Amino acid sequence: MSEVGEKAVRARDAARRLARVPVGIRNKALLGIAAELVNSCKYILDANAVDMEAGRAKGLSRALLDRLMLTPDRVEEMAAGVKAVAALPDPLGTVDGMWTLANGLSVGRVRVPLGVIGIIYEARPNVTVDAACLCLKAGSAVILRGGSEAFRSNLALAQVLVRAALDAGLPEGAIGMIETTDRSAVEELMKQRDCVDVIIPRGGAGLIASVVNNSTVPVIETGTGNCHVYVDEGADLEMARDIVINAKCQRPGVCNAMETLLVHKASAAAFLPVVLEALGERGVEVRGCPATRAVASWVVPAVEEDWATEFLDLVCAVKVVEGMEEAMDHIYRYGSGHSEAIVTRDWGRGRRFLKEVDAAAVYVNASTRFTDGFQFGFGAEIGISTQKLHARGPMGLAALTTYKYVVYGDGQVRS
Amino acid sequence: MSEVGEKAVRARDAARRLARVPVGIRNKALLGIAAELVNSCKYILDANAVDMEAGRAKGLSRALLDRLMLTPDRVEEMAAGVKAVAALPDPLGTVDGMWTLANGLSVGRVRVPLGVIGIIYEARPNVTVDAACLCLKAGSAVILRGGSEAFRSNLALAQVLVRAALDAGLPEGAIGMIETTDRSAVEELMKQRDCVDVIIPRGGAGLIASVVNNSTVPVIETGTGNCHVYVDEGADLEMARDIVINAKCQRPGVCNAMETLLVHKASAAAFLPVVLEALGERGVEVRGCPATRAVASWVVPAVEEDWATEFLDLVCAVKVVEGMEEAMDHIYRYGSGHSEAIVTRDWGRGRRFLKEVDAAAVYVNASTRFTDGFQFGFGAEIGISTQKLHARGPMGLAALTTYKYVVYGDGQVRS
Repeated sequence: MSEVGEKAVRARDAARRLARVPVGIRNKALLGIAAELVNSCKYILDANAVDMEAGRAKGLSRALLDRLMLTPDRVEEMAAGVKAVAALPDPLGTVDGMWTLANGLSVGRVRVPLGVIGIIYEARPNVTVDAACLCLKAGSAVILRGGSEAFRSNLALAQVLVRAALDAGLPEGAIGMIETTDRSAVEELMKQRDCVDVIIPRGGAGLIASVVNNSTVPVIETGTGNCHVYVDEGADLEMARDIVINAKCQRPGVCNAMETLLVHKASAAAFLPVVLEALGERGVEVRGCPATRAVASWVVPAVEEDWATEFLDLVCAVKVVEGMEEAMDHIYRYGSGHSEAIVTRDWGRGRRFLKEVDAAAVYVNASTRFTDGFQFGFGAEIGISTQKLHARGPMGLAALTTYKYVVYGDGQVRS
Repeated sequence: MSEVGEKAVRARDAARRLARVPVGIRNKALLGIAAELVNSCKYILDANAVDMEAGRAKGLSRALLDRLMLTPDRVEEMAAGVKAVAALPDPLGTVDGMWTLANGLSVGRVRVPLGVIGIIYEARPNVTVDAACLCLKAGSAVILRGGSEAFRSNLALAQVLVRAALDAGLPEGAIGMIETTDRSAVEELMKQRDCVDVIIPRGGAGLIASVVNNSTVPVIETGTGNCHVYVDEGADLEMARDIVINAKCQRPGVCNAMETLLVHKASAAAFLPVVLEALGERGVEVRGCPATRAVASWVVPAVEEDWATEFLDLVCAVKVVEGMEEAMDHIYRYGSGHSEAIVTRDWGRGRRFLKEVDAAAVYVNASTRFTDGFQFGFGAEIGISTQKLHARGPMGLAALTTYKYVVYGDGQVRS
């Protein structure tokens, strides 16, 4: 049997045992992992140094090298994250509802683990720790497949995780890392329907598209955010400027950052000079419609493709619209269903935007940057779903569970 | 553009408008459809007669012809079903929860439509009506693709549905039926990720496997039920017999029927003669382990494959087990995660079975036949999910919705 097939079967068997492990033991394992990460810091950093060396030799970009790099502080941060997961309430065993049928049967809906979760990810080694620990807390076994650039770092981290988990009494196979580095291993993992219950890809658009198109295991699609802020007629323009600057500049490389600003034509004359100056001061390249360019000559003409692009950078498309109808049409056409905001003083238009815009998170008078499991109060985040099935928006521990019906009878048969 | 591509785009546009249609209009459309079905009964039956004629000429089995056949009574039943859906509460707009963050932002989780739902199904024309009406009630547009045997019946039904829906004010395109009969149309529908949010296959194992393996649109897998009843040591044997007979014989062709009976060795001597006689009287072919065959010579020897088979017929596999551990191992190995039952007098073993058996529905002292949206009190059912993502077990209207986060702010930005 191949490595992937073998680890999938082991994960499935482990998942069955893991489902019976009480939360006390799961938390003990997490605290053990946190301690072991700190204890093994040198071992982890040595492995990471080899990856970094290879990455430099391979000519990886500075951004990629930064994502890859581990430091004592970053290892401490990972450990702190694991402790925080241990402190969260158990997502399992909750009864969402229980009712009694006319024939006396009691039917209840109980939260149970998903089973086996596959995580396919790229260069950040911290995903190895974050994702594995969230899955364990939620009672599921996890199969990890990280990017080749972080291979040695991931392997070292996985060794630490596995050892600490076993020490705490978790079943063998609860954490599996695919060590075969060629692509065929990923392809195989995505076909393990009998053993793997869901695959969550974490990474860039290319990775996600590849998983979505090739997996026969159900996938939760995460990440792509082409987010908009619409500044309404009569909006508080100071508030609008603060929200736009925050949504674009506070951390431009993430999925909940604003990519396109839409401005009502009645607000354009007063707002555009202010906001363009503020964007320009922060080094943002603006790609604008003709009305935007008329305000500032340094604005680059926007082309069709700009409206559809997740820049993930200090680049911003700007368009003046006739009204909220056109703004919502634009969002419908180009949005990725992630996070959309309106800045308005008008009650009715605020309500309408909330109702009619279809996205994981819809905001009135706030920055799109809040779409995040920690910000929303979930205490953790495995990713942000941009699909509609199972989980939408920030996914905390609850999104890593499913339910089953339990039925208590006294001999009932169906007539 | 192909027919499928065109209908998918129209459905997507319709879904956007449909999401804003209040429940009063959706219900009016459903009541209009119910009335129109009865009014157009002759038109529908004429179309069905052509399908029936072609089916007979093609040599379809009696069972298939029965599924295909419409009668005035069956049309009345469909109409009654649609009225019942109209009478159900609106699954949309419910706020599952709302909370306020430290910074004053209010975050709420609101039930919203899925968007566009594709239904791929086989010979039963009633699915055309049932599925379309459930989707409309849940605020989603629907794209229907039925089996070729029922082509004319489905077309006639879809015409009635579309006319009545338009009359009530639902947007054009809210109900689409794919009329291209060759297989490429199904393949194309399964790739419409930009327009279709989910595909629900309804039919036999072959259809479901084909959709699961080929769709890039998320799929909700339904249907396969290899269900077990385990009769424990010390069980009430009269209750056990009634449950087994009900689970196997009341309607053997459905997914929640029992396929394998597991009997604790301590109950075997008293229970097997009774239950085998009762099964035999009802014409059930029994395929048993050696211990079962020792009780009745007419029992056929069970082979490995029998444990894994969903017979969907008056056939039953029977195995004597050492205890509940072996019973649960057997269920883990061969079960399809649908419905599993224990008959026991023992509190601890009942609790253990409920906790440790991983299936959509787990029963103590009741027939597996209750796994059904109507029985569970959902008032409707689009299918029974045997996967763990999104929905598990009987899916009512709530399973046809998703949620979005609405965030009410006063200018909050992220620091």
